[in-house]
Parts: sequence; structure tokens; C-alpha cells
Amino acid sequence: MKSADEVADNLIEGYLSPPTDTPMQHVGNYELPSREEVSRIVEQCRGLLFPGYVGPSVARLPRAELGIVVRERLDELRNTLRRQVYRALHHKAQSMGNVEDHCGDCAEDAADITARFIGRLPELRDLVAGDLRAAYVGDPAASGIDEVIFCYPGVYAISIYRLAHALSREGAALIPRMMTEQAHERTGIDIHPGARIGQQFFIDHGTGVVIGETCRIGDHVRIYQGVTLGALSVPYGAERPRAGSQRHPTIEDDVVIYAGATILGGDTVIGKGAVIGGNAWVTASVPPGAKIAGAHSRRDTSNGS
Amino acid sequence: MKSADEVADNLIEGYLSPPTDTPMQHVGNYELPSREEVSRIVEQCRGLLFPGYVGPSVARLPRAELGIVVRERLDELRNTLRRQVYRALHHKAQSMGNVEDHCGDCAEDAADITARFIGRLPELRDLVAGDLRAAYVGDPAASGIDEVIFCYPGVYAISIYRLAHALSREGAALIPRMMTEQAHERTGIDIHPGARIGQQFFIDHGTGVVIGETCRIGDHVRIYQGVTLGALSVPYGAERPRAGSQRHPTIEDDVVIYAGATILGGDTVIGKGAVIGGNAWVTASVPPGAKIAGAHSRRDTSNGS
Amino acid sequence: MKSADEVADNLIEGYLSPPTDTPMQHVGNYELPSREEVSRIVEQCRGLLFPGYVGPSVARLPRAELGIVVRERLDELRNTLRRQVYRALHHKAQSMGNVEDHCGDCAEDAADITARFIGRLPELRDLVAGDLRAAYVGDPAASGIDEVIFCYPGVYAISIYRLAHALSREGAALIPRMMTEQAHERTGIDIHPGARIGQQFFIDHGTGVVIGETCRIGDHVRIYQGVTLGALSVPYGAERPRAGSQRHPTIEDDVVIYAGATILGGDTVIGKGAVIGGNAWVTASVPPGAKIAGAHSRRDTSNGS
Amino acid sequence: MKSADEVADNLIEGYLSPPTDTPMQHVGNYELPSREEVSRIVEQCRGLLFPGYVGPSVARLPRAELGIVVRERLDELRNTLRRQVYRALHHKAQSMGNVEDHCGDCAEDAADITARFIGRLPELRDLVAGDLRAAYVGDPAASGIDEVIFCYPGVYAISIYRLAHALSREGAALIPRMMTEQAHERTGIDIHPGARIGQQFFIDHGTGVVIGETCRIGDHVRIYQGVTLGALSVPYGAERPRAGSQRHPTIEDDVVIYAGATILGGDTVIGKGAVIGGNAWVTASVPPGAKIAGAHSRRDTSNGS
Amino acid sequence: MKSADEVADNLIEGYLSPPTDTPMQHVGNYELPSREEVSRIVEQCRGLLFPGYVGPSVARLPRAELGIVVRERLDELRNTLRRQVYRALHHKAQSMGNVEDHCGDCAEDAADITARFIGRLPELRDLVAGDLRAAYVGDPAASGIDEVIFCYPGVYAISIYRLAHALSREGAALIPRMMTEQAHERTGIDIHPGARIGQQFFIDHGTGVVIGETCRIGDHVRIYQGVTLGALSVPYGAERPRAGSQRHPTIEDDVVIYAGATILGGDTVIGKGAVIGGNAWVTASVPPGAKIAGAHSRRDTSNGS
Amino acid sequence: MKSADEVADNLIEGYLSPPTDTPMQHVGNYELPSREEVSRIVEQCRGLLFPGYVGPSVARLPRAELGIVVRERLDELRNTLRRQVYRALHHKAQSMGNVEDHCGDCAEDAADITARFIGRLPELRDLVAGDLRAAYVGDPAASGIDEVIFCYPGVYAISIYRLAHALSREGAALIPRMMTEQAHERTGIDIHPGARIGQQFFIDHGTGVVIGETCRIGDHVRIYQGVTLGALSVPYGAERPRAGSQRHPTIEDDVVIYAGATILGGDTVIGKGAVIGGNAWVTASVPPGAKIAGAHSRRDTSNGS
Repeated sequence: MKSADEVADNLIEGYLSPPTDTPMQHVGNYELPSREEVSRIVEQCRGLLFPGYVGPSVARLPRAELGIVVRERLDELRNTLRRQVYRALHHKAQSMGNVEDHCGDCAEDAADITARFIGRLPELRDLVAGDLRAAYVGDPAASGIDEVIFCYPGVYAISIYRLAHALSREGAALIPRMMTEQAHERTGIDIHPGARIGQQFFIDHGTGVVIGETCRIGDHVRIYQGVTLGALSVPYGAERPRAGSQRHPTIEDDVVIYAGATILGGDTVIGKGAVIGGNAWVTASVPPGAKIAGAHSRRDTSNGS
Repeated sequence: MKSADEVADNLIEGYLSPPTDTPMQHVGNYELPSREEVSRIVEQCRGLLFPGYVGPSVARLPRAELGIVVRERLDELRNTLRRQVYRALHHKAQSMGNVEDHCGDCAEDAADITARFIGRLPELRDLVAGDLRAAYVGDPAASGIDEVIFCYPGVYAISIYRLAHALSREGAALIPRMMTEQAHERTGIDIHPGARIGQQFFIDHGTGVVIGETCRIGDHVRIYQGVTLGALSVPYGAERPRAGSQRHPTIEDDVVIYAGATILGGDTVIGKGAVIGGNAWVTASVPPGAKIAGAHSRRDTSNGS
Repeated sequence: MKSADEVADNLIEGYLSPPTDTPMQHVGNYELPSREEVSRIVEQCRGLLFPGYVGPSVARLPRAELGIVVRERLDELRNTLRRQVYRALHHKAQSMGNVEDHCGDCAEDAADITARFIGRLPELRDLVAGDLRAAYVGDPAASGIDEVIFCYPGVYAISIYRLAHALSREGAALIPRMMTEQAHERTGIDIHPGARIGQQFFIDHGTGVVIGETCRIGDHVRIYQGVTLGALSVPYGAERPRAGSQRHPTIEDDVVIYAGATILGGDTVIGKGAVIGGNAWVTASVPPGAKIAGAHSRRDTSNGS
Repeated sequence: MKSADEVADNLIEGYLSPPTDTPMQHVGNYELPSREEVSRIVEQCRGLLFPGYVGPSVARLPRAELGIVVRERLDELRNTLRRQVYRALHHKAQSMGNVEDHCGDCAEDAADITARFIGRLPELRDLVAGDLRAAYVGDPAASGIDEVIFCYPGVYAISIYRLAHALSREGAALIPRMMTEQAHERTGIDIHPGARIGQQFFIDHGTGVVIGETCRIGDHVRIYQGVTLGALSVPYGAERPRAGSQRHPTIEDDVVIYAGATILGGDTVIGKGAVIGGNAWVTASVPPGAKIAGAHSRRDTSNGS
Repeated sequence: MKSADEVADNLIEGYLSPPTDTPMQHVGNYELPSREEVSRIVEQCRGLLFPGYVGPSVARLPRAELGIVVRERLDELRNTLRRQVYRALHHKAQSMGNVEDHCGDCAEDAADITARFIGRLPELRDLVAGDLRAAYVGDPAASGIDEVIFCYPGVYAISIYRLAHALSREGAALIPRMMTEQAHERTGIDIHPGARIGQQFFIDHGTGVVIGETCRIGDHVRIYQGVTLGALSVPYGAERPRAGSQRHPTIEDDVVIYAGATILGGDTVIGKGAVIGGNAWVTASVPPGAKIAGAHSRRDTSNGS
Repeated sequence: MKSADEVADNLIEGYLSPPTDTPMQHVGNYELPSREEVSRIVEQCRGLLFPGYVGPSVARLPRAELGIVVRERLDELRNTLRRQVYRALHHKAQSMGNVEDHCGDCAEDAADITARFIGRLPELRDLVAGDLRAAYVGDPAASGIDEVIFCYPGVYAISIYRLAHALSREGAALIPRMMTEQAHERTGIDIHPGARIGQQFFIDHGTGVVIGETCRIGDHVRIYQGVTLGALSVPYGAERPRAGSQRHPTIEDDVVIYAGATILGGDTVIGKGAVIGGNAWVTASVPPGAKIAGAHSRRDTSNGS
């Protein structure tokens, strides 16, 4: 049995060994982004999207104090976000061997990305409003918009995806993925920030939903728990896909995909208004308006499992 | 690019604009319920159901101090719960245009609902004891009741459902849904507080389980991960369902439903003692004692995905 | 309606009633393990596996201070772990009626188990490094090892399984299960610490994955979300399975299992290099290299759900 | 040098050795009061005396919610206080060798003491209002009652004394002393809870003030920083003073005592309206209306220190 | 004995009764400043004055990240400070009966005051540097500037006075007093923010020091624990002093005042380079360069106390 | 008015300017000690001296678990202390220009100092037990040792001095001073860790007490609030005193010093058993057994202040 000191020495040796293909530690001379700070970013954004629902109360504030509060929250968001975006950019530049003296660029880039992202918050808020409406209209059990905001994991995951997608398009690295992964943890809904999703998107219940990086989804689409929009498998160890190639399906406007359905492949297009049945397995395109049945069962006397 | 000040002004304008059909903010003159406080309610209830397992230790307390501790916990629960129930009722009354001067009623109603709910805690504890037994008996891998309480997400989700359902029946709004949604987040098991579930209910593993608002489930039922007990789809934008209509299935006593099965529709009845196979898709009633096979696969040479 | 005092008295009576078959409370004369402390153990271990990624920054530390920090973290882990392992052993001994005066043994056993576990940390770290490589190689969307560590729930769940499995083999009770259940909560991936899993294991997305207690999994295996490796059902209330009997399947090296597939039974062996299609349902062995198709759907005009 | 294990063993041996005249540890079978909880009691009381100034905001609450909030705060205070009063009584009973089976009395006594104390809160609030007025009137630099509440350490220390004195008179042990000692820490003003102090008492600045256990102070008294109202010295190791004997001075109505003055002895009476000069040293009675000069200095050429 | 409900009703009645001359509650429609937030302001300022000594580490930051960090801290300070300054101004305006619609001015004024204060931080930092030098030079026991920053309460109290005085001169109400009172709590040194104090001021040990509102203190002054620079007493209940009248002494450059000395009165001037002995009592002016002996004792046989 | 950006640039420029004689920032490549961590050290030590009184409860622990708990606390103390001692030594070495490659020595020295200090904890505990006895015997108002531990600031300050003095003698820099300064903040009692103090030392009330670096105090000494044991003044800007020269008085066994007395000078010896009256001013030696009267006042008609 190793002694505690041997364990310490072994670990330190591992931490300090020359970079390998699997660097599990970061003991270099700068900081990595922080999961906890990314969680704060998410809550700060949500506090600006849903004031009164998320974050400290803003009830009964006079107009003037409301102005103070909103500016405070924007400042806080800017600072938290800028630091994390900086760290991710700096880490990326370092990982790619960029020289130290370009470091100032990362700080400037981070400030620009952050400012542009914050500039888009009002339009992102409008987009999320559409998603809320879609959820309220799409679920007959919803008792009001308040229940939708408080209790619908789909709305949580989609709104974070909206933020992460916008941040990603402005040029941020790693942080958007950390944001959507946090939503995945909380909701079981895994939306890659690279996916492109239209207006009024609704996911009900949502546990187990996976939406891949190069998906394209139109307006007014509804999907249910356990739906996968994935890639066809690639041989183990194949080379990285070319940037720009589409590996995940296209879902056109007004499509409904029921629970447990799986739709795979970059050439697969689900046409406008199609309905995909529960547990369906789809690897080829479906014309507009079609209905694809799910995998039904029959009654028999065999042992059910 | 919008400046920070423009963003602030845009956001505030949005917050203060006259009520629309999608009110995403709450800047009115009262507080909404709080997710964090609802989490505290859940932990306070669980601390009373499972003392020594949940919440501060009660080991080695003399009898007299135990009496003090239990009364403290009941007081804390009453206060936390009453405040949140009040906020939800008040918000509901306000949303429906009820006049200000009826506000005192909300406070009184909240106090009454809370007192009745707390009065039911001993019987709820007995009910949960039955669920624990069902889990221990139902899973051969369970090493003891302690493991069941600490490690079984199904037990967590069911016990919170039991609490939320009772609270809902006493007249609380919104809070019960927030409670079960919290269990959903933690376990991936989504049980609507409106469902009616008999004794000794067991869910194993549980990720992806969905149990809809108007389900009726008998005694001694066992279900596994990924099972949906849902509604048949309704046309997009259909009117709200009538209160009282049953949209989700009825599961009679002693039924077992294996992983991934989907059972839909308010007229669907799974008869006493039936067994539903894994991944089965069921939209019609099944007689008592029947066995429904799941969707089996066959060996072939085609590409598997 | 019961008064608050009646509720308190009813609850206390329940807490103090003689042990039944469902002891929901622990008011005895020692402490149970604590969920919160088990969470700390998990984070402390991860901080040692992934310094710089998890836990307080170690960036820019001089070599001498790094040595101090690592020893500190090992001390903290040893203390937290030893206490929880002790509590679980002591509780188990008490539950089995072991006499009080053997209590010292639990403390000694806990110290030994903890020391041996910590002695294995360097090799566990190597094992986890293999899993990281498998994830990076297995997912073309992964932008780097940093994204894999921060954003891949499969890596999170597998690394905690690695720790829990090792701890379990050293003789710890209950704590390993609490560790993997915590990973289950966060990721939706439920791996029993008793399972035996080879090198370079990869789970993608992962929500809904269940891997049972007696599974044996070879090297280089890849599985996707919603996969169950389970037991065939046993009659309700059957006696506990014999220790040592295998109830869950064997998965040989290089197997790939796509999303939603279910593989059941202790005699089921998936041969080396086989591929199991999405949503497949497998209850019998599959020869090496075989491809098992999933449950595909067909286009029809019936109502999709 | 002792090894860590020797240190541990030495310490444990000390902890477990039979009771001596200096028991520095408490490893018995019940809990002692907690400094942290006593701090909470102080803040809870102050939140009820000064709502809006101390504790969570109560601004803009509708009347009905204010009623809820006040009842919550009273419940919280009752619970925190009852527990600490119980612990102190129980400890005292145990220390005096009272038998175990009287333990229920402590719990009952604690509940009674707590209830009576809470019953006196409204009158205590009136008393404190008088002290506030005295501070505002007594210090020309005070800009308003708000500054007095926020910034006057004398007001802080006196209001805690008022609470502690009342609690002491209802029969609580040790807790009142812990309360005034907390005020001492924060303000440098050390008032024993046993002192009897009339209305509209004012202490300015206050650092270094000491007011002994058997002092009697009339109405409208003002004192400044560094004033001692103490006992004449007793021979080292003299026996405990008889309960009821007065060891500290009597200060009649309307007296003013300037900074640094020292007044000693149980037979010393400072008559109504007297003025005691700065740094004065007084060990004999002073008639009503007298002015006692402080210790003045003269100009000289010697080294000043 | 009052019941809990009676107590609640009594308290609420008191809270809601029409404004009296002693308003101990604030249940109006806006928030008061918060002690906790004022503490944050103090720490935020100190973090900017003494980076690396106070607040999160800035060691080993690259230049670019240091720029980010400093801007973050300035933003945080601006937000925290602006909000508290606003609340104090708004409260003051409301207390003086100013009409609601002027409220916007408070927000604007608070923003202006905050911006001007922050603009002065670099010069305040230079001023504090002088005080540090004075402490290091003035105390032969100081081992270095680091010990002075970490361990000298005089430096703590003076630097907070410097900040509070500047903030007060920019027009902030109440907050400066709350800042210096916090320093008083921690150090026992009570400096009114209105006092005017020159460069390189040093207070050693400091417990019990009081420096009144209208004091004027020159450069290079040193004072020791227990020194009072106060006002001559005013008849009880006298009218508020005229703004602008000087009630506290003037201390010219290079004066030293030893422990326990008391100097009173607005007409009292301690001339340049004078030395005031320990425990001295001074109520008249002292010429430049004079030495005033303290109150010395003589040996005798009387009982010493 | 400077803009925020100008302020930031000014501050950064100041932070990065070459070292001056007043380095107010630490932006170098290592960390300084932390006030917060020093507070933890103090509480960790006190938890080992006074288990059950300070820190988490140890009531009702079985013997075996008590062993675990004590070892845990010693480990925690060792780690926290070693890190802070290291930082202070490293900082000192760097400040004195020691070269980087000696850095390993600091880590080793810190480990040695810490181990030796911990080895002395049992004897320090005995020393503190004597101080407790002295307090209980010395104050007739003390109701028991429990009140002495909970409520006597003198005991708090002396026990921290005992720890800090021992740590200082083992070779730690700066940390001992930070420890006693923390006690100063809380109690108003300022004891330099360099002072040498005999057994059974008692300080009553204590606010304003100052005990200088080179004091020597015998056994069984009692002192009261406001007592200064200081140095005679030195000309402003005099050179640092020689190490080893005694600047503060010697107090022999059994001396009593009443409130407000001031004793100055390294040649001043207060002989065994002497009594120094309140407010006395002593700058020359006093023979054994002498009684020195304080500064008494007389009645007169002059204005008292």
C-alpha cells in the first residue's frame, strides 16, 4: 500500500509531467474558466430575462430604483461574463501555442464579445417570450405563464440554449457549451449551443432529449421527452468532422416529434408539418405533412422483459 | 451595437409595458413564490418524514429535547409553507383581477391550508413507509431500508409527490407543482401533483419517467425508467381541457411496467396484475393479468444506427 | 384536523416506536452518513484527479506550495472519507446486532479502508485518463480535452463510478452507492458501484443510462443515452439473489451500444466488437462482431401517438 | 517533540479525565448553549424592535403579509430562544448534580421563560424608544433617529441590555450574560444583565464603559466613554459575595458622568442631578446636584510621558 | 402574560401607528440603507486601496487580467455604493417631506456623488500611503509595512475615515457615518467623518479614541489609545448646534497626544509641535511647542481603589 | 472629474510601479497570508482547547468517534496553519531579497514550526486552564467556569496570546501578530505576542488594555480595563530599537493593577505583590508590596468638563 507521501509525490509528478495527449490538470500560469462562475452567468442572464421570477425581488421598486437595479445587474453580468470569456479565449490561445504577448488581444476580444452579447439581450428576451407562448399553448395542463416559467424544464433549457447560441455566435469559446451542459444537468435536456433553432420552440417534460451541434430546426416545432436528433455513427477514431459539414437532421416548421423518437443524419430532413410518432426511428427524410408511426407493440403471452 | 444604457432602457421598457399575453416579468406590488423557499419546504418536510436521514442530526437527543426539536421543525415548516402558499394564492387572485381588499382572505386561506397539510403529516408518513417497503421488496439489489432512503431516486420523487398531492388537495396553488418539478430536476422523474397514486408504489432507476396530471394508479404498482403515462396528443392550440376530464391512463393494482414503455390516453385502462413489456407502446386498454410484449429487435447485418 | 401539538406527538411516537421492518428514522445513539459529506468526498476526489479544473485554482503555484496544497487536499479527503466510512460501517454493525464493544473495530477498519483507497488514487487517475481519451476520440464534436472534462456528463459519471468501485472493493459499505447516486442525480446516468468496467469506457450524452450491479464490461466500450444493461425481471417479492450470482449482462471489448437499447439478463453476453442498434431489445447473447438492428419505424397514415 | 498521535492522545486523555475544578471541555451527553445561536437571538430580537432597520426588509408589505412576517419572526425567536434557554438550564441542573429524570422540567421551564419574555417585548420596545429619544436629545451631532439606530453603539448596547435583563428576571441562566457580552465585543460597552437601569438612559461613544452587576441607575442618566461603575476591590480569593448584597454604586436620576470617570462601591450613591467630571475617581457618595471635578492637568516642562 | 398573538398585534400596531418623534421602524414604501451593504462598500474600497492584502488574491495575474479585475472591482463598488447613497438620500428627502415626484433626482444625485467619489480614489490612496508611512515610522515595534496594513487598527480606522470624509464632502448622507461606525466597532476608534485631518496621521493601539465632528487636525499628528478630542458639555436638551460652528478642538501640525488624554472645546487650539501627556485633561489652548504633563500619581499607603 | 477608466489606469499604474518605501499592494508572484485564514486558525485552536464550548458539538460521541474527531481537527489545524506560516515566511524571505531557489526551505520550515507548535498544545492547554482558574477565583461575579469560557473577554484574549506567543517562539513570522490583533478587535485587549506572561493571569472587562512587546509579567497577576503597560515615548523617527532591549515594564508576581492605570518604561519594575491604583500614572519602579494610589478627584463647583 502506498503511503500518503508516496501518493502525494505520485500525483504531483503526474500534474507536472510534460503535456500529453490527455492533460487532466491545469497547473499552468493562468486560470481556467470556472463552472461556478458559469452558473452565476446563467442566473444573472435569467434574472434579466425574468425579473421577479429569478433573482432578488424587484417588486414594489420605484421607477428610479428599478433603473439602478437593472444597470447593476447588467454591470454584474458584464463583469462575470467578460472574465470567463477571457479565460476561455486565453486558454484556447495558449493551447494552440499562441505567444504570450498577444494576451492583450484576448482581454479586448472578451470585452467586445461581452458587449455585443449584452447588446442582444432585448432581442433574446423577445425570442424567449415566443418560447413561453409556445409552451403555454402547447400544453393543456399549463395553468398560466407563471407556471411555465417556474416549472417547465423545457423552457429553462431552451432559454439557456438561446443565450449560449448567441454568445457562441459572437465568438466565445467553451463558455456556451458549459452553459448548455448546466441546463442538461438540471433538466436532462442536452441542446448543443451550435444548433440553429427557430421561433416558438417547445419541449415538454424533456428528460433525455438530445439535439446535436449541426441541427437546424424551424419555427413552431414541438418535441417531447426522450427525443434524439443525432448523427449517424462514425467509425471509432475517425478524423474530426470538417467544420461546416451538417451531421445532424433538419427539422422544418411546425413539426411535432413524440416521446422517445430518434432522428439521425445530416441529410435527413423532416418536412414542414410532419408528425413523428413515439419511439420512432428515422434515418431518412420525411416529406412535408407526413405522419410516421412509432414502434407499436402487440399483446402476447411471452414474458414481457 | 446597442450601448449598455440602451440595453437597460430597452429592458426596463419591456418590464414596464402593459401586461401582454406573455408576462415574463413581475414588477408589481407583491412578491411571487420563490424556488429557493420551495426547496426549503421540501427539505423541511423530508426532515420530518426521515429524521436522522435528512436534516440536522437527532441522534442521542434526550426525549425532552427531541420534543423541542420536533416542535421547532413544525414551526419552521409552517412559517415557510404559509408564506409561499400565501404568495401563490395572492398572485393567483391578483392575476384574475380580484380586488385588493380581499387580500386578507389569502393570508387566512394560506394559514388554513398550511395547518390542514401539517395535520396530515403523520398519515403521509405512513404512506411513504409503504413506498419504502415496496422499494425494498421490489429491488433485489437493495441492501437495506437505509440504502433505499439514501440512494433511491424513485423514493425521493414519490415522497415529494405524496406531499405535493396532499398540499394540492388542501387548496394550494402553484407550490405543489414547484415541489414536484424540483424532484423532476433531481431525479428525472416527472410526476404531476394532480395524479392519484395508491399505496406501495415503486419506481426503479426512474430517469425519464413521466406521470401525467389525471393518471390514476392503484396499489402495489411497479414501474421502471423511461416509462411515460401520458395523454394522446391534442391539436396544436386546442382549447384548455375541461377540468375533471381524464386525459391520462388508469393503472390498476399490481401492474408492472418495464423500462421505456409508453401508455397513453384517458380511456386506456391497464387491468389488475397486467405486465407491460419494455419499450412497449400502448394506446388501448389491456385486460387484467395480460402480458404485453415490448418492441423486440432481430439480428441483422444492416448498420445499427 | 390535528393540532400542531398532536402532530408533534404523533410524529415523536412514530420516531420512538420499537424498530419495525421499515425504520424511516434514525434517533439512535450514533450518526448516520451524510449526503452532504459524501458530496464533499466526491468533489475532493475530483479535485485531486483534475486539479485546476475542479476545486480552488492551483495555477501559478510555486512547486513548494503545490506540494503543500496536495498534502492538504489528501488530508482533507482522508478525514472526510474516514468519518463517513466509519459511520456506515458502524451503522451496519449496529443494524446487524453487533455488540457495542466491537465499536473500536469500525474506526480501525474505516482508517484502513480509507488509507488503501487513497493509496490507489494514482492508478485510478490513470484509469480516468483513459476514459477521457475515449471520450475525446469517440465524439467528433469534442473540441478538446478541456471541453471533455468540463462538459461531458459521461466522464463525470464514469470517474465517480471508478472511485466508488475502488472504495467498495476496499470494503466500504453504503458510501460507494451514495457516490454513484449523486452522479445519477447530476447526469441521469445510473452506474452501480458493483459493476466491473474495463478501460477507456465512453458514455455519450448519457441521460437515462442504467448499468446494473453485476454487469461486466470490457475495454473500449461505447454506449449512448438511454441504454439499459439490466436484470430480467424477478417475481415480486422473490428472495434476495445469492451473492455472486450474475444478474446483469456481460459486454465484451469494443462493443458499441446505440441510444435507447436495452440488454437484459445475467446469461446474456454481447460478443467482442458487436454493435447494438438504437432502441434494440436484447435478452439473449449476441456473437462477436454481430450487428443488431434497432426497432425501426415505417411511414404510415395512422395517428402517430 | 510530540508526534501528532501523542498530541491527540494527550488531548483526549485531558478531555475524558474525571471532572476537575476547571472543566475546559464539554464531552458529556447533552449540548451546551451556542454563541452563534445567541447571536441569532440578539438579531431576531432587534429585528422585532427595529423592523426595517434590522433584518430583512419589510418595506412595501401589504398589511396581511406584515402580519405573516411578524408571526414568523416571533416563532423563530421563540424556537431559537427556547432551545438555548433549555440548554443553559439543563447544563446548570446537571452541573449541580440534579438527577436525570428531572430533565423534563428544564424543557418546560425553558418554554415558560421564553413565552413570558416574548410577552414583554412590546413594553421592552417602549423602553428602548425612550433610550432612542435620550440619545437624540443628548447628542447635538445626531442628525436624526435613523442615525441613532444605525450608528450609536450606546443604543445598541443598551437595547441588548434591556432584553438580557428582562430575560434574566424571567429566570434564564447564562444566556443573558452571553447576550450582553456580545454587545461588549461589538461596542466595548460592558453592561452586566443584572444591573437595574431606569428610563431614557444614554451612553455616548461608549468604548470602555463598564457597568457592574448590582448597579442601580435612575432615569435620564447620561454617561460617556470609559466610565466605570464598579466594585471596590476584594481580597484575592475571597469567598463569593452574598446574593443580594450591593457591590456597585447607585446613580440617581438626571446624573451626568463624563468620559473616563470611575465610580466604585456598593455604598456609593451619586445624588440626583449630580455631574461627575471627566477622569474623576469617586469612591464615596456625592450629594444631589453636586459637581465633581475631574483630574485636571497643568502645563509644565517635564516630559509628558 | 400576553399570548403570542397579542404580542404580534401589539407590535404591528406599534409599527403602523402614525409617525411619532421616535420612529423605530421603517415599514414605508422604500428601503433604508443596509449595514451589511455598507460593510461591503468598506471592503470593496479597501480591496482597491490594498490589493493583495484585502479581498481576493491578485497575485500572479498577467497585466491584461489585472486590468479586467480592477475594472470589475470599480464596477462593483460603483453599484453597491450608488444604491446605498441613493437609499440614504431618498430616505432623507422623504423624511423632510419632499414630494414623490422629485425621486428621480435622488437617483441622479447618487450616481453623481458616486462617480465623483470614485474619481478621487487615486488621491485617497496617496493620502493613505502617507498614513502607513507615519505608522511605520511612528512605532518602533512595526516590523514592516505588511504588519502595519494587516495588524494596525489605527491604520484601519484612519483609512475608513479618509474614505468616509471624502464621500461626505461629495454630498452623501448617513453612509459615511455608517462607515466610520463600522470602523469604531472593529477598532474601538471613533472618528466622525466630518472631522478634518491632515497628512500622515497616526493612532497607536487606539481603543477608546474619540475624534469629534468639527475637529481640525494638522499634518504629522500622533495620538495614542484612549484619547478624546471632544466638545464641552452642553445643557441637556439644548438646541442643535449651528452648522459651521466649531465644537471640537484644533490640533496643529506635529502634535503628539499620549494615552488617555482628553482635549475639549471648539476654542481649544493645541499649537504646532506641542506634546500632551498621558491622562491629561485640557480645556484651554496650549501654545506651540509646549509640553503638558499628564495626571501623575504618588506612592502612598491608602487603599489603591 | 476622472472617468472610471482613468481611475482604473491610475490605480493599476500605482499597483505596478516599482517598489517604494510604502508598498500598499501585493501583486507579485506569490500569496500573502490571509486574515480570514488566521481567524480560522484561532477558532481551530480554540476548538481543541475548549471542545464542546467552541466549534461543532462533541457531546455524546462514542470514544472511538472522539478519537477520529480529534485527529481530524489536528489535521485541519496543521494544514491551515502550515499554509499561513509558509506564506508569511516566504513573503519575509522575498522581501529581504532572498533568492527564489531557497523557497523550498520556507515550506520545510513552515512544516517544522507547525509540528512543534502542535506538539505544545497539551501544555498550552494546561496553561490556559490556570488562566481560567484565575478568572473564576478573581471575579466574585463569575457563576462558573462555563460563564468564564463563554463570556470573559480577558480569557479570550489571554488564550489567544498564549497560542500566538508559543507560535512566535517556534519561529513563525507575522501570523502571531495577526492572531493577537484579531483578539484585540474582538475584545479591545491588545497583547503583543512577544510579551512574556506567567501563570494564572487575569484581565477583567479588559477594554483598552495594552501590553507591549517586551513586557515581562510574573505569575498570579490581575489587571483591569484600560491598563497600559507601555514604552516611554521615543523621538519621532528614531531608529528601530535594538532587538533584545526591553522597552516595556516588568510586573512581578501577585501584582494587581486597577482600571485605567498606565505603567511605562523598560526599567520600570513593579515589585511582587504591589497594588497600583486606578488611573495611576507610573514611570518609575515600585517596591514589592507597595500600594500606589490612583488619581483621585475632589468635589468642587467648577464645570465638570
